[in-house]
Amino acid sequence: MPTIFFYGPRLDKEKSKEMIKDFTETASQVTGIERSAFVVYLRESKPENVGVGGELLEDKLKGT
Amino acid sequence: MPTIFFYGPRLDKEKSKEMIKDFTETASQVTGIERSAFVVYLRESKPENVGVGGELLEDKLKGT
Amino acid sequence: MPTIFFYGPRLDKEKSKEMIKDFTETASQVTGIERSAFVVYLRESKPENVGVGGELLEDKLKGT
Amino acid sequence: MPTIFFYGPRLDKEKSKEMIKDFTETASQVTGIERSAFVVYLRESKPENVGVGGELLEDKLKGT
Amino acid sequence: MPTIFFYGPRLDKEKSKEMIKDFTETASQVTGIERSAFVVYLRESKPENVGVGGELLEDKLKGT
Amino acid sequence: MPTIFFYGPRLDKEKSKEMIKDFTETASQVTGIERSAFVVYLRESKPENVGVGGELLEDKLKGT
Repeated sequence: MPTIFFYGPRLDKEKSKEMIKDFTETASQVTGIERSAFVVYLRESKPENVGVGGELLEDKLKGT
Repeated sequence: MPTIFFYGPRLDKEKSKEMIKDFTETASQVTGIERSAFVVYLRESKPENVGVGGELLEDKLKGT
Repeated sequence: MPTIFFYGPRLDKEKSKEMIKDFTETASQVTGIERSAFVVYLRESKPENVGVGGELLEDKLKGT
Repeated sequence: MPTIFFYGPRLDKEKSKEMIKDFTETASQVTGIERSAFVVYLRESKPENVGVGGELLEDKLKGT
Repeated sequence: MPTIFFYGPRLDKEKSKEMIKDFTETASQVTGIERSAFVVYLRESKPENVGVGGELLEDKLKGT
Repeated sequence: MPTIFFYGPRLDKEKSKEMIKDFTETASQVTGIERSAFVVYLRESKPENVGVGGELLEDKLKGT
Protein backbone atom coordinates (compact mmCIF):
# COMPACT_ATOMS: atom_id res chain seq x y z
CA MET A 1 0.00 0.00 0.00
CA PRO A 2 2.82 2.52 0.11
CA THR A 3 2.19 5.43 -2.20
CA ILE A 4 4.64 7.73 -3.97
CA PHE A 5 3.80 11.12 -5.46
CA PHE A 6 6.13 12.81 -7.90
CA TYR A 7 5.52 16.52 -8.61
CA GLY A 8 7.66 17.56 -11.54
CA PRO A 9 7.84 18.15 -15.26
CA ARG A 10 5.74 16.27 -17.79
CA LEU A 11 7.36 13.00 -18.83
CA ASP A 12 6.89 11.06 -22.04
CA LYS A 13 5.75 7.45 -21.87
CA GLU A 14 9.22 5.87 -21.83
CA LYS A 15 10.41 8.14 -19.04
CA SER A 16 7.20 7.63 -17.05
CA LYS A 17 7.71 3.88 -17.23
CA GLU A 18 11.32 4.16 -16.16
CA MET A 19 10.48 6.43 -13.24
CA ILE A 20 7.68 4.15 -12.03
CA LYS A 21 9.78 1.01 -12.40
CA ASP A 22 12.82 2.41 -10.62
CA PHE A 23 10.88 4.11 -7.79
CA THR A 24 8.97 0.89 -7.16
CA GLU A 25 12.10 -1.26 -7.16
CA THR A 26 13.93 1.04 -4.78
CA ALA A 27 10.98 1.33 -2.44
CA SER A 28 10.28 -2.39 -2.47
CA GLN A 29 13.91 -3.22 -1.75
CA VAL A 30 14.30 -0.68 1.03
CA THR A 31 11.04 -1.54 2.80
CA GLY A 32 10.90 -5.26 2.10
CA ILE A 33 7.30 -4.87 0.87
CA GLU A 34 6.37 -6.66 -2.37
CA ARG A 35 6.34 -4.54 -5.52
CA SER A 36 2.67 -5.19 -6.27
CA ALA A 37 1.69 -3.11 -3.23
CA PHE A 38 3.17 0.15 -4.53
CA VAL A 39 1.30 2.90 -6.33
CA VAL A 40 3.14 5.80 -7.96
CA TYR A 41 1.43 9.01 -9.06
CA LEU A 42 3.20 11.26 -11.54
CA ARG A 43 1.66 14.68 -11.00
CA GLU A 44 2.70 17.15 -13.66
CA SER A 45 3.67 20.65 -12.58
CA LYS A 46 3.90 23.27 -15.30
CA PRO A 47 6.54 25.99 -14.84
CA GLU A 48 3.73 28.57 -14.83
CA ASN A 49 2.35 27.01 -11.65
CA VAL A 50 5.53 26.57 -9.64
CA GLY A 51 7.49 29.07 -7.61
CA VAL A 52 11.11 28.65 -6.61
CA GLY A 53 12.73 31.11 -4.23
CA GLY A 54 9.75 33.43 -4.57
CA GLU A 55 9.84 33.62 -8.37
CA LEU A 56 7.77 31.91 -11.02
CA LEU A 57 9.73 28.95 -12.40
CA GLU A 58 8.52 29.91 -15.88
CA ASP A 59 10.38 33.21 -15.56
CA LYS A 60 13.49 31.66 -14.03
CA LEU A 61 13.78 29.16 -16.89
CA LYS A 62 13.55 32.01 -19.39
CA GLY A 63 16.30 33.83 -17.56
CA THR A 64 13.90 36.70 -16.97
CA MET B 1 -12.25 22.04 8.13
CA PRO B 2 -11.52 18.40 7.44
CA THR B 3 -10.35 17.87 3.89
CA ILE B 4 -10.60 14.79 1.68
CA PHE B 5 -8.54 14.15 -1.46
CA PHE B 6 -9.55 11.49 -3.94
CA TYR B 7 -6.94 10.47 -6.54
CA GLY B 8 -8.61 8.29 -9.14
CA PRO B 9 -10.27 8.12 -12.54
CA ARG B 10 -12.17 11.01 -14.07
CA LEU B 11 -15.81 11.05 -12.97
CA ASP B 12 -18.79 12.55 -14.76
CA LYS B 13 -20.91 15.13 -12.99
CA GLU B 14 -23.45 12.73 -11.50
CA LYS B 15 -20.74 10.46 -10.11
CA SER B 16 -18.76 13.43 -8.77
CA LYS B 17 -21.83 14.64 -6.91
CA GLU B 18 -22.51 11.19 -5.49
CA MET B 19 -18.90 10.73 -4.36
CA ILE B 20 -18.80 14.16 -2.70
CA LYS B 21 -22.18 13.70 -1.00
CA ASP B 22 -21.39 10.25 0.36
CA PHE B 23 -17.85 11.03 1.49
CA THR B 24 -19.11 14.12 3.31
CA GLU B 25 -21.97 12.26 4.98
CA THR B 26 -19.71 9.45 6.14
CA ALA B 27 -17.03 11.80 7.41
CA SER B 28 -19.53 14.06 9.16
CA GLN B 29 -21.22 11.12 10.85
CA VAL B 30 -17.98 9.47 11.98
CA THR B 31 -16.36 12.66 13.29
CA GLY B 32 -19.44 14.47 14.57
CA ILE B 33 -18.38 17.60 12.69
CA GLU B 34 -21.08 19.42 10.70
CA ARG B 35 -21.19 18.73 6.97
CA SER B 36 -20.59 22.35 5.98
CA ALA B 37 -17.02 22.13 7.28
CA PHE B 38 -15.90 19.45 4.81
CA VAL B 39 -14.10 20.04 1.55
CA VAL B 40 -13.58 17.25 -0.97
CA TYR B 41 -11.09 17.45 -3.84
CA LEU B 42 -11.48 15.04 -6.74
CA ARG B 43 -8.03 14.90 -8.33
CA GLU B 44 -8.08 13.09 -11.64
CA SER B 45 -5.29 10.58 -12.34
CA LYS B 46 -4.93 9.41 -15.91
CA PRO B 47 -3.72 5.82 -16.42
CA GLU B 48 -0.68 7.22 -18.26
CA ASN B 49 0.44 8.93 -15.04
CA VAL B 50 -0.08 6.12 -12.54
CA GLY B 51 2.10 3.14 -11.76
CA VAL B 52 0.85 0.01 -10.02
CA GLY B 53 3.32 -2.69 -9.00
CA GLY B 54 6.05 -0.99 -11.02
CA GLU B 55 4.10 -0.90 -14.28
CA LEU B 56 2.24 1.88 -16.02
CA LEU B 57 -1.48 1.51 -15.29
CA GLU B 58 -2.18 2.41 -18.93
CA ASP B 59 -0.31 -0.72 -20.00
CA LYS B 60 -1.88 -2.94 -17.34
CA LEU B 61 -5.39 -1.92 -18.41
CA LYS B 62 -4.54 -2.79 -22.00
CA GLY B 63 -3.30 -6.17 -20.89
CA THR B 64 0.10 -5.30 -22.30
CA MET C 1 -5.16 1.98 -7.25
CA PRO C 2 -7.32 4.95 -6.31
CA THR C 3 -6.12 6.63 -3.18
CA ILE C 4 -8.03 8.68 -0.61
CA PHE C 5 -6.48 11.04 1.93
CA PHE C 6 -8.46 12.27 4.92
CA TYR C 7 -7.01 15.25 6.83
CA GLY C 8 -8.98 15.67 10.04
CA PRO C 9 -9.18 14.96 13.75
CA ARG C 10 -7.68 11.87 15.36
CA LEU C 11 -10.09 8.93 15.25
CA ASP C 12 -10.21 5.93 17.56
CA LYS C 13 -9.94 2.45 16.09
CA GLU C 14 -13.68 1.85 15.66
CA LYS C 15 -14.18 5.17 13.90
CA SER C 16 -11.10 4.64 11.72
CA LYS C 17 -12.47 1.29 10.59
CA GLU C 18 -15.89 2.76 9.85
CA MET C 19 -14.40 5.66 7.87
CA ILE C 20 -12.18 3.35 5.82
CA LYS C 21 -14.97 0.86 5.16
CA ASP C 22 -17.50 3.47 4.09
CA PHE C 23 -15.11 5.53 1.97
CA THR C 24 -13.98 2.39 0.18
CA GLU C 25 -17.52 1.16 -0.43
CA THR C 26 -18.66 4.51 -1.78
CA ALA C 27 -15.62 4.90 -4.00
CA SER C 28 -15.82 1.35 -5.30
CA GLN C 29 -19.51 1.69 -6.10
CA VAL C 30 -19.17 5.07 -7.81
CA THR C 31 -16.12 4.15 -9.90
CA GLY C 32 -16.90 0.49 -10.54
CA ILE C 33 -13.37 -0.45 -9.43
CA GLU C 34 -13.03 -3.42 -7.05
CA ARG C 35 -12.64 -2.59 -3.36
CA SER C 36 -9.27 -4.30 -3.04
CA ALA C 37 -7.68 -1.58 -5.21
CA PHE C 38 -8.42 1.26 -2.79
CA VAL C 39 -6.03 2.69 -0.23
CA VAL C 40 -7.20 5.19 2.41
CA TYR C 41 -4.83 7.32 4.47
CA LEU C 42 -6.13 8.91 7.66
CA ARG C 43 -3.81 11.85 8.27
CA GLU C 44 -4.34 13.39 11.68
CA SER C 45 -4.43 17.18 11.92
CA LYS C 46 -4.15 18.66 15.38
CA PRO C 47 -6.06 21.91 16.02
CA GLU C 48 -2.72 23.60 16.79
CA ASN C 49 -1.61 22.96 13.20
CA VAL C 50 -4.71 24.01 11.30
CA GLY C 51 -5.92 27.47 10.36
CA VAL C 52 -9.50 28.28 9.43
CA GLY C 53 -10.38 31.73 8.14
CA GLY C 54 -6.95 33.01 9.14
CA GLU C 55 -7.17 31.87 12.76
CA LEU C 56 -5.69 28.91 14.55
CA LEU C 57 -8.35 26.21 14.89
CA GLU C 58 -7.12 25.58 18.44
CA ASP C 59 -8.11 29.13 19.36
CA LYS C 60 -11.43 28.99 17.50
CA LEU C 61 -12.44 25.80 19.32
CA LYS C 62 -11.66 27.48 22.66
CA GLY C 63 -13.81 30.41 21.68
CA THR C 64 -10.76 32.64 22.04
CA MET D 1 13.34 22.89 1.36
CA PRO D 2 9.95 23.83 2.78
CA THR D 3 7.17 23.26 0.30
CA ILE D 4 3.80 24.98 -0.02
CA PHE D 5 0.82 23.62 -1.95
CA PHE D 6 -2.09 25.87 -2.86
CA TYR D 7 -5.29 24.16 -4.02
CA GLY D 8 -7.63 26.80 -5.39
CA PRO D 9 -8.93 28.58 -8.47
CA ARG D 10 -6.87 29.15 -11.59
CA LEU D 11 -4.77 32.31 -11.36
CA ASP D 12 -3.45 34.44 -14.18
CA LYS D 13 0.29 35.08 -14.41
CA GLU D 14 0.33 38.31 -12.40
CA LYS D 15 -1.67 36.78 -9.57
CA SER D 16 0.44 33.61 -9.60
CA LYS D 17 3.57 35.71 -9.22
CA GLU D 18 2.07 37.73 -6.40
CA MET D 19 0.90 34.61 -4.54
CA ILE D 20 4.30 32.92 -4.89
CA LYS D 21 6.22 36.03 -3.86
CA ASP D 22 4.08 36.75 -0.81
CA PHE D 23 3.85 33.14 0.41
CA THR D 24 7.62 32.80 0.12
CA GLU D 25 8.29 36.06 1.94
CA THR D 26 5.92 35.18 4.76
CA ALA D 27 7.28 31.66 5.13
CA SER D 28 10.90 32.79 4.98
CA GLN D 29 10.32 35.47 7.57
CA VAL D 30 8.40 33.23 9.97
CA THR D 31 10.81 30.28 9.74
CA GLY D 32 14.09 32.17 9.33
CA ILE D 33 14.95 29.97 6.35
CA GLU D 34 16.32 31.70 3.25
CA ARG D 35 13.84 32.38 0.43
CA SER D 36 15.75 30.33 -2.13
CA ALA D 37 14.83 27.13 -0.25
CA PHE D 38 11.07 27.48 -0.76
CA VAL D 39 9.03 25.82 -3.46
CA VAL D 40 5.38 26.75 -4.05
CA TYR D 41 2.99 24.63 -6.10
CA LEU D 42 -0.20 26.24 -7.39
CA ARG D 43 -2.56 23.32 -7.97
CA GLU D 44 -5.67 24.38 -9.84
CA SER D 45 -9.00 23.02 -8.63
CA LYS D 46 -11.94 23.43 -10.96
CA PRO D 47 -15.36 23.96 -9.33
CA GLU D 48 -16.54 20.75 -11.02
CA ASN D 49 -13.99 18.78 -9.00
CA VAL D 50 -14.51 20.29 -5.56
CA GLY D 51 -17.16 19.59 -2.97
CA VAL D 52 -18.05 21.96 -0.15
CA GLY D 53 -20.49 20.87 2.55
CA GLY D 54 -21.42 17.81 0.49
CA GLU D 55 -22.34 19.74 -2.66
CA LEU D 56 -20.46 20.31 -5.87
CA LEU D 57 -18.83 23.76 -5.77
CA GLU D 58 -19.86 24.24 -9.40
CA ASP D 59 -23.50 24.01 -8.35
CA LYS D 60 -23.07 26.20 -5.29
CA LEU D 61 -21.48 28.96 -7.34
CA LYS D 62 -24.42 28.86 -9.76
CA GLY D 63 -26.81 29.17 -6.86
CA THR D 64 -28.32 25.85 -7.85
CA MET E 1 -12.67 26.32 0.03
CA PRO E 2 -9.09 26.90 -1.09
CA THR E 3 -6.64 24.87 0.91
CA ILE E 4 -2.98 25.52 1.66
CA PHE E 5 -0.49 22.91 2.88
CA PHE E 6 2.83 23.92 4.38
CA TYR E 7 5.48 21.21 4.74
CA GLY E 8 8.31 22.56 6.84
CA PRO E 9 9.86 22.81 10.30
CA ARG E 10 7.83 22.71 13.50
CA LEU E 11 6.57 26.15 14.47
CA ASP E 12 5.66 27.43 17.92
CA LYS E 13 2.19 28.81 18.51
CA GLU E 14 3.00 32.46 17.77
CA LYS E 15 4.71 31.58 14.50
CA SER E 16 1.91 29.20 13.50
CA LYS E 17 -0.62 31.99 14.03
CA GLU E 18 1.45 34.44 12.02
CA MET E 19 1.92 31.98 9.14
CA ILE E 20 -1.79 31.14 9.02
CA LYS E 21 -2.87 34.78 9.23
CA ASP E 22 -0.48 35.98 6.54
CA PHE E 23 -1.07 33.07 4.12
CA THR E 24 -4.82 33.56 4.44
CA GLU E 25 -4.63 37.31 3.90
CA THR E 26 -2.40 36.95 0.85
CA ALA E 27 -4.54 34.22 -0.66
CA SER E 28 -7.80 36.04 0.03
CA GLN E 29 -6.49 39.25 -1.48
CA VAL E 30 -5.05 37.59 -4.59
CA THR E 31 -8.09 35.40 -5.30
CA GLY E 32 -10.84 37.76 -4.12
CA ILE E 33 -12.34 34.91 -2.06
CA GLU E 34 -13.38 35.74 1.51
CA ARG E 35 -10.94 34.78 4.26
CA SER E 36 -13.40 32.47 6.02
CA ALA E 37 -13.19 30.02 3.11
CA PHE E 38 -9.48 29.26 3.55
CA VAL E 39 -8.01 26.32 5.41
CA VAL E 40 -4.28 26.09 6.13
CA TYR E 41 -2.54 22.89 7.21
CA LEU E 42 0.88 23.15 8.84
CA ARG E 43 2.46 19.72 8.28
CA GLU E 44 5.64 19.30 10.26
CA SER E 45 8.61 17.69 8.51
CA LYS E 46 11.46 16.55 10.71
CA PRO E 47 14.98 16.80 9.23
CA GLU E 48 15.28 13.03 9.62
CA ASN E 49 12.44 12.56 7.15
CA VAL E 50 13.44 15.01 4.45
CA GLY E 51 15.97 14.66 1.67
CA VAL E 52 17.50 17.58 -0.19
CA GLY E 53 19.71 16.95 -3.20
CA GLY E 54 19.83 13.26 -2.39
CA GLU E 55 21.02 13.68 1.19
CA LEU E 56 19.20 13.53 4.49
CA LEU E 57 18.45 17.07 5.67
CA GLU E 58 19.39 15.99 9.20
CA ASP E 59 22.93 15.29 7.98
CA LYS E 60 23.15 18.45 5.88
CA LEU E 61 22.16 20.62 8.86
CA LYS E 62 24.89 18.98 10.96
CA GLY E 63 27.40 19.71 8.25
CA THR E 64 28.03 15.98 7.97
CA MET F 1 12.31 21.90 -7.67
CA PRO F 2 10.66 18.54 -8.25
CA THR F 3 9.24 17.09 -5.07
CA ILE F 4 8.65 13.47 -4.09
CA PHE F 5 6.38 12.27 -1.28
CA PHE F 6 6.63 8.75 0.07
CA TYR F 7 3.74 7.53 2.25
CA GLY F 8 4.73 4.26 3.86
CA PRO F 9 6.16 2.54 6.92
CA ARG F 10 8.63 4.16 9.30
CA LEU F 11 12.22 3.75 8.10
CA ASP F 12 15.37 3.77 10.17
CA LYS F 13 18.11 6.23 9.32
CA GLU F 14 20.08 3.97 6.98
CA LYS F 15 16.98 3.05 5.00
CA SER F 16 15.81 6.66 4.87
CA LYS F 17 19.16 7.68 3.42
CA GLU F 18 19.07 4.90 0.85
CA MET F 19 15.51 5.74 -0.22
CA ILE F 20 16.30 9.44 -0.56
CA LYS F 21 19.54 8.81 -2.46
CA ASP F 22 18.02 6.33 -4.90
CA PHE F 23 14.81 8.29 -5.54
CA THR F 24 16.84 11.41 -6.21
CA GLU F 25 19.25 9.65 -8.54
CA THR F 26 16.45 8.03 -10.51
CA ALA F 27 14.46 11.24 -10.77
CA SER F 28 17.49 13.31 -11.72
CA GLN F 29 18.52 10.85 -14.40
CA VAL F 30 15.03 10.49 -15.89
CA THR F 31 14.25 14.22 -15.94
CA GLY F 32 17.73 15.58 -16.66
CA ILE F 33 17.35 18.02 -13.75
CA GLU F 34 20.31 18.37 -11.37
CA ARG F 35 20.09 16.40 -8.12
CA SER F 36 20.34 19.48 -5.91
CA ALA F 37 16.86 20.57 -7.05
CA PHE F 38 15.04 17.55 -5.61
CA VAL F 39 13.29 17.37 -2.28
CA VAL F 40 12.01 14.07 -0.88
CA TYR F 41 9.53 13.84 1.99
CA LEU F 42 9.22 10.55 3.85
CA ARG F 43 5.76 10.67 5.43
CA GLU F 44 5.23 7.87 7.89
CA SER F 45 1.91 6.02 7.78
CA LYS F 46 1.11 3.80 10.74
CA PRO F 47 -0.92 0.65 10.02
CA GLU F 48 -3.62 1.99 12.36
CA ASN F 49 -4.15 4.92 10.00
CA VAL F 50 -4.21 3.14 6.65
CA GLY F 51 -6.99 1.20 4.98
CA VAL F 52 -6.45 -1.32 2.21
CA GLY F 53 -9.42 -2.82 0.41
CA GLY F 54 -11.78 -1.37 3.01
CA GLU F 55 -10.01 -2.86 6.02
CA LEU F 56 -7.61 -1.40 8.52
CA LEU F 57 -4.04 -2.34 7.56
CA GLU F 58 -3.32 -2.95 11.25
CA ASP F 59 -5.91 -5.73 11.23
CA LYS F 60 -4.79 -7.17 7.92
CA LEU F 61 -1.19 -7.45 9.10
CA LYS F 62 -2.37 -9.30 12.21
CA GLY F 63 -4.34 -11.67 10.05
CA THR F 64 -7.50 -10.58 11.85
